Amino acid sequence: MPEQLGYLGPAGTYSEEAALKYAPGAQLVPFPSVAAVGAAVGSGMVEEGVVAIENSLEGSVNDTLDLLIQESRLFIRTELVVPIEHYLLVKPGTRVQDVRVVFSHPQAFGQCRRFVERCFPKAQIVAALSTTAAVEEMMAHPSAAAAIASKRAAELYGAQILARDIQDRLPNVTRFVVLALSDHAPTGRDKTSICFTFAEDKPGALYGVLKEFAGRGINLAKIESRPLKESLGKYFFLADLEGHREDRVVAETLERVTGVTSSLKVFGSYPRYHENG
Amino acid sequence: MPEQLGYLGPAGTYSEEAALKYAPGAQLVPFPSVAAVGAAVGSGMVEEGVVAIENSLEGSVNDTLDLLIQESRLFIRTELVVPIEHYLLVKPGTRVQDVRVVFSHPQAFGQCRRFVERCFPKAQIVAALSTTAAVEEMMAHPSAAAAIASKRAAELYGAQILARDIQDRLPNVTRFVVLALSDHAPTGRDKTSICFTFAEDKPGALYGVLKEFAGRGINLAKIESRPLKESLGKYFFLADLEGHREDRVVAETLERVTGVTSSLKVFGSYPRYHENG
Repeated sequence: MPEQLGYLGPAGTYSEEAALKYAPGAQLVPFPSVAAVGAAVGSGMVEEGVVAIENSLEGSVNDTLDLLIQESRLFIRTELVVPIEHYLLVKPGTRVQDVRVVFSHPQAFGQCRRFVERCFPKAQIVAALSTTAAVEEMMAHPSAAAAIASKRAAELYGAQILARDIQDRLPNVTRFVVLALSDHAPTGRDKTSICFTFAEDKPGALYGVLKEFAGRGINLAKIESRPLKESLGKYFFLADLEGHREDRVVAETLERVTGVTSSLKVFGSYPRYHENG
Repeated sequence: MPEQLGYLGPAGTYSEEAALKYAPGAQLVPFPSVAAVGAAVGSGMVEEGVVAIENSLEGSVNDTLDLLIQESRLFIRTELVVPIEHYLLVKPGTRVQDVRVVFSHPQAFGQCRRFVERCFPKAQIVAALSTTAAVEEMMAHPSAAAAIASKRAAELYGAQILARDIQDRLPNVTRFVVLALSDHAPTGRDKTSICFTFAEDKPGALYGVLKEFAGRGINLAKIESRPLKESLGKYFFLADLEGHREDRVVAETLERVTGVTSSLKVFGSYPRYHENG
């Protein structure tokens, strides 16, 4: 367990909940953005940092994927999954019919899209840096406003709860990863996250990579593309595969993949998450 | 060309620019959201609709992908690519140092992330339904505010331009698709967009699909995953491939892919975009 653990703060965010679940004894250090958590880990200001990477309703957290792509010092040391329950918070005494502004983090808005469209079709939607920052802004707002955040944020800021479990569907869970300067030793129940690119588009380039994995019975749990940002149609591919990079068969495969891609980065090997594990 | 063409409005959005480029003679009908454009096309209120699907800096437009996944009546009839130049707009006479609030569409904020972080680190970031809606909100705002939108929006609303070309990198281009109740006849220079799912995770499931394409020399231009929204680790896969679904080799391959997936939807076959084409 780390002594100091960075997270997207302030206190009351779902990232703090993940941090408490992962390392209850650590000193938790809040940062204002995912990029700031990454910079703090990369520079050694904190040993490890917790950031959200994927939600069951909204999909990937692009800030985190882009951070892993750009920051060559950061590795994924472990992952954990946290159930997410969103609450609608107001200043005590605020009536729902007076609310004209709703504050939250863009991911939370995405997870509560239908609730917001139906209940607040004309409200101003204000993007905050975190769900707790949204509560701070709501409490300081001169007129009637609401925030979407956690129950803990309501308690910390003395906000009133107007509605609970307002996400579009259940279950709503978020996968968090713990960033560090190195990844995890093999445990026998591991996964490995990688990122690769191709110099040119040709039939079967991606197939050539998947073939290396499939041919050795290695399951790809996930694959997706992020823009290279140079032009349309050029991508980083991100994949999660079963096994540890030090497993002989995985190591052999990654060696082969290096030969059929123009760049390959291993974000890290780490234990697969399972409850009570 | 359609008589009536829906787009994400009001006038002045980049979607309107795409609509004017695609069908300069059509009657343009603005809608407040991507979902509304989809509903208007699906119900026959307009013949076709233009929506953004992918940006070279920010990646996919999730609203559009989710619409295509959910709306079984909609097909992609064609695509076009539009260069995007963002402007910083204010009410005439507003001084940049007084700006405390910035309005825009989330995609535009994503494309101008560094500019906003550097120039307005403490501003409130307000998400509008479109870049033009952002200009309307900025003009109506009681105190000093700015909006990120197009040059045409500045002209339409009498806003003052404080900065131009504020996106993080150049070139910044967006791919738009035209939605209709049917796709396009073969032209010999086509692409096909598909979506598929697997009943269970097993080694090589995705590989099995890619093998069908690679084995016939069909290039996959893009592949990505979107959450099934049932649980973590379950995805829709979206892919763009070269060729038309009526081409014999593509038709044969799609037939085979049907056998190795639990669902396969063809979003449409349509001419690949090329300038002056």
